[in-house]
Amino acid sequence: MDIDLIRQHTPGTRHAIHLNAAGSALPPEPVLTTVVAHLTLESEIGGYEAADAAAEDLAGSYAALAELVGAEPAEIAFTESATRAWDQAFYAIPFKPGDRILTTESEYTSSALAYAQVARRHGTVTEVVPDDADGTIDLDALAAALARGGVRLVALNHMPTHDGLINPAAEVGALAREHGALFLLDACQSVGQVPVDVRELNADLLSATGRKFLRGPRGTGFLYARAEILPLLDPPVVDLLAADLTGPDDFAFRPDARRFESWERSVANQLGLGTAARYALDLGLDAIAGRVQGLAARLRTGLSGLPGVTVHDRGAHKSGIVTFGHTVREAGELVTELAARGVVTRVSEQTFRYDGGAHPPARVRASAHYYNTEDEIDQAVATLAEVLGG
Amino acid sequence: MDIDLIRQHTPGTRHAIHLNAAGSALPPEPVLTTVVAHLTLESEIGGYEAADAAAEDLAGSYAALAELVGAEPAEIAFTESATRAWDQAFYAIPFKPGDRILTTESEYTSSALAYAQVARRHGTVTEVVPDDADGTIDLDALAAALARGGVRLVALNHMPTHDGLINPAAEVGALAREHGALFLLDACQSVGQVPVDVRELNADLLSATGRKFLRGPRGTGFLYARAEILPLLDPPVVDLLAADLTGPDDFAFRPDARRFESWERSVANQLGLGTAARYALDLGLDAIAGRVQGLAARLRTGLSGLPGVTVHDRGAHKSGIVTFGHTVREAGELVTELAARGVVTRVSEQTFRYDGGAHPPARVRASAHYYNTEDEIDQAVATLAEVLGG
Repeated sequence: MDIDLIRQHTPGTRHAIHLNAAGSALPPEPVLTTVVAHLTLESEIGGYEAADAAAEDLAGSYAALAELVGAEPAEIAFTESATRAWDQAFYAIPFKPGDRILTTESEYTSSALAYAQVARRHGTVTEVVPDDADGTIDLDALAAALARGGVRLVALNHMPTHDGLINPAAEVGALAREHGALFLLDACQSVGQVPVDVRELNADLLSATGRKFLRGPRGTGFLYARAEILPLLDPPVVDLLAADLTGPDDFAFRPDARRFESWERSVANQLGLGTAARYALDLGLDAIAGRVQGLAARLRTGLSGLPGVTVHDRGAHKSGIVTFGHTVREAGELVTELAARGVVTRVSEQTFRYDGGAHPPARVRASAHYYNTEDEIDQAVATLAEVLGG
Repeated sequence: MDIDLIRQHTPGTRHAIHLNAAGSALPPEPVLTTVVAHLTLESEIGGYEAADAAAEDLAGSYAALAELVGAEPAEIAFTESATRAWDQAFYAIPFKPGDRILTTESEYTSSALAYAQVARRHGTVTEVVPDDADGTIDLDALAAALARGGVRLVALNHMPTHDGLINPAAEVGALAREHGALFLLDACQSVGQVPVDVRELNADLLSATGRKFLRGPRGTGFLYARAEILPLLDPPVVDLLAADLTGPDDFAFRPDARRFESWERSVANQLGLGTAARYALDLGLDAIAGRVQGLAARLRTGLSGLPGVTVHDRGAHKSGIVTFGHTVREAGELVTELAARGVVTRVSEQTFRYDGGAHPPARVRASAHYYNTEDEIDQAVATLAEVLGG
């Protein structure tokens, strides 16, 4: 990986030490160029006419996303965010009263809200599979919960947003399938950061975002839906792209995953997402993962050496997300003071716990990407030392 | 209105005679500049950091949209399309079995699909209010249908996409409210084309798009939801922007219309939509409406003088949408041949009829905006004459 060249293609690396890939990463120039070129074309010839002209590249965006996650293009739906991708999948499941939904203590708040909404609507029951000692989902507990029967869905966060762990998605998926439960994987932090293969992960449904480690435009995401399960699902909303009206009160969804889409979208952003996927594929996901995890490990080591600083990341396998706190200083203060010194991090907070306990205090989240350098990591640690010393 | 200056600000006017505002209009330079500037900022400092920097302009986008339709900013939700805005409103209505939904023969296919979906899910009954002799909704028939009771929703297309008519939305809204029915107005062709005031229109819910007559970016839309009816509605999907989790299985929607939004979006596009709204407000909607209708009338007159050409637009009040056909030549051929000669139009087709009858043949849709000139209209007519004569 030619980091100098990559940084030349990443204007944001010239402005600050940007450690917020888990929020929204710095896009590479080809992504910006793709989006701006299409917006310019729209302004010159019109939005529909520009989309017609880009038809081949639009098809290519599905092919690139499919290749990125080991799926077929017909199993990919473009959405405007990972949340909308997840929503379109989750709310399409025909839940019945008493259906059990299994999730984890580290679930993302938006997903927890959705479970609460379907519980209210359909009488589903949300159950939390305990964490193991490492903070990842306990596979024995999951197997036992599945064995009790009636599980409609296992929903898992591949890499929780406020913790550096990686959940054992493939094993979870295998257990779910063995017990006839659907498996929905929230891969919004993992796609673009590590190799993701929907077959290896045994995923029925997988949601991902453009803006994070994939380095795509904001306002983009996508859904993978396994071809075999499409007939089971009733997308929560429908439009003329998704379905055909076959009678005044009758309709049929299109055969592929684009039944989860809506006709209108930012064509420019969709093209930019395709460029981002192709960019990641060209670099290679193994190489990206190796570098991201190396930088994260270096950061954790550096932070652990600072007095009063605790790295909170758990899990036997750790992601590129590094979270830490300080005995005295609040996360918000630290983020502000680091930013003033050119080190961009973010406050991360899990605002609820299923066990009803007090949620942990906010943390600082620092998430490096492959375009960051070892020097930047060391500088970030030194800058924090300066902030804490001041 | 200084048309020369407006055309200078509209690069697309230099490339062709663009008569597809009803599809996706040519954006003005300030819209493109707003979007590209923010995308560039994102690439320089990061997507989250750029959004933080744009917080004031984002708030301004709600204010501009609210002003555009006579609402309060707290009654506006940003969405990625008019369809998603409409969906978020429509599917939020807690329908019960037997609830009646009243619509019109000129309904948009996506909305008809949604009625079919909720009929299947909740046992609602979709009923078509007959057109009057002009093709607009028959107000006497509507009043009679409402008087029979049990109407949960009246859903109306302000300006059907494949017809030049304007439905009497204010009168429809008044009748709906009088009978305790909700009124959902699809204003995707009218916002930016004519003055739209949600109070005057008696709208409970109104959906609109950015890309059409408002000249905003593709991938933008918004929903107006009347403050008083928000507590009645259960948005079809929920995320952490829309609601707070108040217990493991309990949540509360935020008090304002942003409960219909999702956290992630293209911030750049949202800012561009705000710029588009401000641009329209600065020109004045009365002036815009007058010019659009003048150009459309000129076009209809010109087309009507061509042998074999029939203008199909109905309605006592006509919009900027002009649809026509030819006795022999198919619409698709005409659109292609016009495009080859620098006149951009679109094929428009109503692909279903509620009465089960054969849908009418495809038409050519030509939709001028205020940036078009009288000369362009005359040239478009002359070009069609040439095509037909050839």
